[in-house]
Amino acid sequence: MNQQPQDRVRSLLEEWADAIRNKDIERLMGCYASDVVAYDMMPPLEWRGAQSYRAAWEQGLAMPGSFEVELYEPVITARDDIAFAVALAHFDVRPPSGEAYDGWFRWTAGFARSNGEWKIVHEHSSVPIEMESRTALIDLRP
Amino acid sequence: MNQQPQDRVRSLLEEWADAIRNKDIERLMGCYASDVVAYDMMPPLEWRGAQSYRAAWEQGLAMPGSFEVELYEPVITARDDIAFAVALAHFDVRPPSGEAYDGWFRWTAGFARSNGEWKIVHEHSSVPIEMESRTALIDLRP
Repeated sequence: MNQQPQDRVRSLLEEWADAIRNKDIERLMGCYASDVVAYDMMPPLEWRGAQSYRAAWEQGLAMPGSFEVELYEPVITARDDIAFAVALAHFDVRPPSGEAYDGWFRWTAGFARSNGEWKIVHEHSSVPIEMESRTALIDLRP
Repeated sequence: MNQQPQDRVRSLLEEWADAIRNKDIERLMGCYASDVVAYDMMPPLEWRGAQSYRAAWEQGLAMPGSFEVELYEPVITARDDIAFAVALAHFDVRPPSGEAYDGWFRWTAGFARSNGEWKIVHEHSSVPIEMESRTALIDLRP
């Protein structure tokens, strides 16, 4: 009960990754504040509110086979009741048929504690782009 | 001198946008902490440290003609000596010859105050992508 904010946020990130691995949409959505603003890898430009953002995750978790996301050594900055975290992240997809694939993306999140509970209030996931050819660079590695 | 953290961060964002508009690389780099980690719209996957990130901005500001970035109603969350900010952002490019163009992107930043000075310690800029065709969606509007 006396955990430091940084440890609480780290636990929340483990819960988040575990919920994705288990494709547990209820546990996953429990990590987000109801007014979360999300900038996802895929369109639209932004999601406003957990109720709408849920649609993005439902689609993501509906993929057959296994799907894992690992935050690589996230750096968490926390004070009092707010925090932000920054990490390169690795995803790994193994469809039941067809080839497995994986890749890296950039992940930033903001957090707030409300009524003693830490939640993700902002999430931003992306890959860089090649501007002239308008190509998404999904094969970059750290 | 007695400004609230939120106001100090807002001033820093105005300084940042003004430095870009004036193509003043020194003023712009003065907004960043020396150990900033940046996830830019263009590759690489990440920039580590202001000294290396400077190269990205030098290239950006070298474009002929005018170049403006406006953060649209940034939401700033600040406590004590840390903060994060979230905004959709609009860029507007007007080359001396050729057609003007503009667009929207997503912008997230983390801040820390050190020795009384607020600096950007993290910056993340991106557009969504269409995964199957690997297309960068640079024409989306809010």
